[in-house]
Amino acid sequence: MGTNMHDHIVKSYDEEQKRLLNETLRMGEMAAAQLEAALDVVKRRDDKAAERIVANDDALDALEQEISHDVMKLALRGPMARDLREILAAIRVASDIERIGDYAANVAKRSTALNLAPPLPQVSGLHAIGTLAVQQLRDVLTAYRDSDVEAAQRIRDRDAEIDTAYTALFRELLTYMMEDARAITPCTHLLFMAKNIERVGDHATNIAENVWFLVKGEEQLPPRDKRDESNTVAP
Amino acid sequence: MGTNMHDHIVKSYDEEQKRLLNETLRMGEMAAAQLEAALDVVKRRDDKAAERIVANDDALDALEQEISHDVMKLALRGPMARDLREILAAIRVASDIERIGDYAANVAKRSTALNLAPPLPQVSGLHAIGTLAVQQLRDVLTAYRDSDVEAAQRIRDRDAEIDTAYTALFRELLTYMMEDARAITPCTHLLFMAKNIERVGDHATNIAENVWFLVKGEEQLPPRDKRDESNTVAP
Repeated sequence: MGTNMHDHIVKSYDEEQKRLLNETLRMGEMAAAQLEAALDVVKRRDDKAAERIVANDDALDALEQEISHDVMKLALRGPMARDLREILAAIRVASDIERIGDYAANVAKRSTALNLAPPLPQVSGLHAIGTLAVQQLRDVLTAYRDSDVEAAQRIRDRDAEIDTAYTALFRELLTYMMEDARAITPCTHLLFMAKNIERVGDHATNIAENVWFLVKGEEQLPPRDKRDESNTVAP
Repeated sequence: MGTNMHDHIVKSYDEEQKRLLNETLRMGEMAAAQLEAALDVVKRRDDKAAERIVANDDALDALEQEISHDVMKLALRGPMARDLREILAAIRVASDIERIGDYAANVAKRSTALNLAPPLPQVSGLHAIGTLAVQQLRDVLTAYRDSDVEAAQRIRDRDAEIDTAYTALFRELLTYMMEDARAITPCTHLLFMAKNIERVGDHATNIAENVWFLVKGEEQLPPRDKRDESNTVAP
């Protein structure tokens, strides 16, 4: 082993921790961009662009690996209290973002199946819910960056809007399928795409709860509304 | 603060780590039992039992909280190498199990909507995939208990069976819906229930990958088959 100056440069814990947060935020913004691109691709019925989104998901997975690696390195320095919560939050937030990326890729993938059938009017409803979800994600990333518990709580409460819009779209799609049997397969894909987006909202909520954990530790979270009633829609 | 003997009893790190593993395994078995019960409830069309399964999910969430708490306590002791990986694996595995519990509760919840319509023949297909998923989960928990990388790899490869069965059921349900518009709503619930179970398989795979991480650290995992082709089924 060499003994030149470079061997002795150890970055400060704070610098490494800052880097971890920035990586996680960058990963979050990549997922938001992927979801936005997926919604756009559904609207434009662009199969080529859909393939690119699916391929891009690998970059998100790689970034999660990198974050795990950095968490391991930081954990070895024996962080305590808030520092420890920072790395536990980062690992959980990265895992939520990774799932959001999967959902974006899934929306893009299913769009190519949608494009084999005539355009469905409900695509605009999907777009509306998707736009809400992208906004939730961007807002919660900002709250995470700023350790802003109040903002995180407001974002968490807003998830009910996505749930309500999802349940309405679910009902609308069922009605449409009953009226036209040829629409069943594309509508089924759209149902799953809508569900994917509703799940993005749930993961944004998880991130909001990690902001709480980061700042407040193990103090109990206040209760929350949950309005997805689609799973009890009667035949 | 008292100074009697009990204050001085500090459990050994190994004991605490063993306790963490056992808690995680117990949580995993609870999730397997919940999923099994959910499949049974779908078959028997038992709304009361379905409600109990949904209510039981809180116990799993509480156990995940407890595991997070124990991970925090262990992390404060500054574990390294394998010990550090043990706690990182525990936190990830507990999060996968928590999701599996959610899927089991979701299957139970949707079963009450199914029971408002005449029985569907495809319920037996759902039961078959569900049984595979329960087996995958129990097997991967055993591999996790034993740090058995080879068993974990075999379980990971077996996930393709669930994906193939899910894609077949997906196609069958679409055909059925096209033949009978009255079956659309219950079939849609069944589609989502099947998707939930397919996701259980994915989470069992995640657990298998954590067994790899536990034993091999950051060494690259070998590639894996993925056979869920339902998201590109053509109209």
